Amino acid sequence: MEYTKPLAKLIEYFQKLPSIGPKTATRLALYVIKMSENEVANFSNALLEAKQKVSYCKTCFNMSCSDTCEICSDNSRNKSIICVVGETKDLIAIEKTNEYKGLYHVLQGLISPIDGIGPDDIRIKELLYRINQNDIKEVILALNPSVEGEATSLYLHKLLKPFEIKISRIAFGLPVGCELEYADEITLAKAIEGRVII
Amino acid sequence: MEYTKPLAKLIEYFQKLPSIGPKTATRLALYVIKMSENEVANFSNALLEAKQKVSYCKTCFNMSCSDTCEICSDNSRNKSIICVVGETKDLIAIEKTNEYKGLYHVLQGLISPIDGIGPDDIRIKELLYRINQNDIKEVILALNPSVEGEATSLYLHKLLKPFEIKISRIAFGLPVGCELEYADEITLAKAIEGRVII
Repeated sequence: MEYTKPLAKLIEYFQKLPSIGPKTATRLALYVIKMSENEVANFSNALLEAKQKVSYCKTCFNMSCSDTCEICSDNSRNKSIICVVGETKDLIAIEKTNEYKGLYHVLQGLISPIDGIGPDDIRIKELLYRINQNDIKEVILALNPSVEGEATSLYLHKLLKPFEIKISRIAFGLPVGCELEYADEITLAKAIEGRVII
Repeated sequence: MEYTKPLAKLIEYFQKLPSIGPKTATRLALYVIKMSENEVANFSNALLEAKQKVSYCKTCFNMSCSDTCEICSDNSRNKSIICVVGETKDLIAIEKTNEYKGLYHVLQGLISPIDGIGPDDIRIKELLYRINQNDIKEVILALNPSVEGEATSLYLHKLLKPFEIKISRIAFGLPVGCELEYADEITLAKAIEGRVII
């Protein structure tokens, strides 16, 4: 006997999510059956709503419900500094330190030839366009200290050099091999504070 | 900055699921935003459908889309044996062995005073009713070898004794393939206690 069809289908969907294996997927699906009808309806709605409403800021590619994200439209922020991150979750991690008051640029990925992700697959040209169009004084590279992050940093450094702006990289206060998303706030704040000119 | 509202809401819903902490919830929600609209719609639907269609078999309380589950309505099965399990997932685990061809009874929980779950909160009276109404020859107790499982087994044993049917319990002992040296003391003690004459 297998799980009854609607349940099997739900298990299958949970299994498509990252880090969810067949056993966790089953546990989650069985839990859903035990939730109240109201809760399940809300959960189901939240999925649709998040997908429908959340898109990307047209300037920095942060996740946003409008064309310009909260950060880009915040006039109190220093618009002459751009911090380049790989993903929105990295941006959130930096925001939590309360240490940085400039703008961001979310690359939406890192260069990773092994996964078939080249420079044109991430938001690099949009970054160059921003730097060209605006009075940018500094670009901070805040990419994961991984092979992909390093490769992307190097590539960006080469591209940005001709602009004659300050280019910095967050300090390796981060333990190498960890993921930016999981770094504790203090370490991350130190890394921003101790950025070095490259 | 926090995640934009629809995203924060989705993270919150994921976090309500068992074994999903804030970081995993965030990872899952961000993944959902990257899924295609179609996939998200399907996932959202699967949730609703599973909740709406799946309920419980009126006889054995296995999860089922109809009043009588596949197992209870399968005439090839031996209807004089009932295997008592705690949850549907335990039933599925036993079914996967292809070893057992009788019926089941899903208690939908185990007695656990610490969680406020008493004998009346699980499907014990329904089990007694089934035994009373049908010609049952054997009841196999297949509950988790935990404090709650043991307590429930003991309680059921006391209740079932007057029926003068065979009452058995699945064997506790060394898992096949393990090494005796590494088995924990309690398992090893159970294995010695439950030794069989050869």
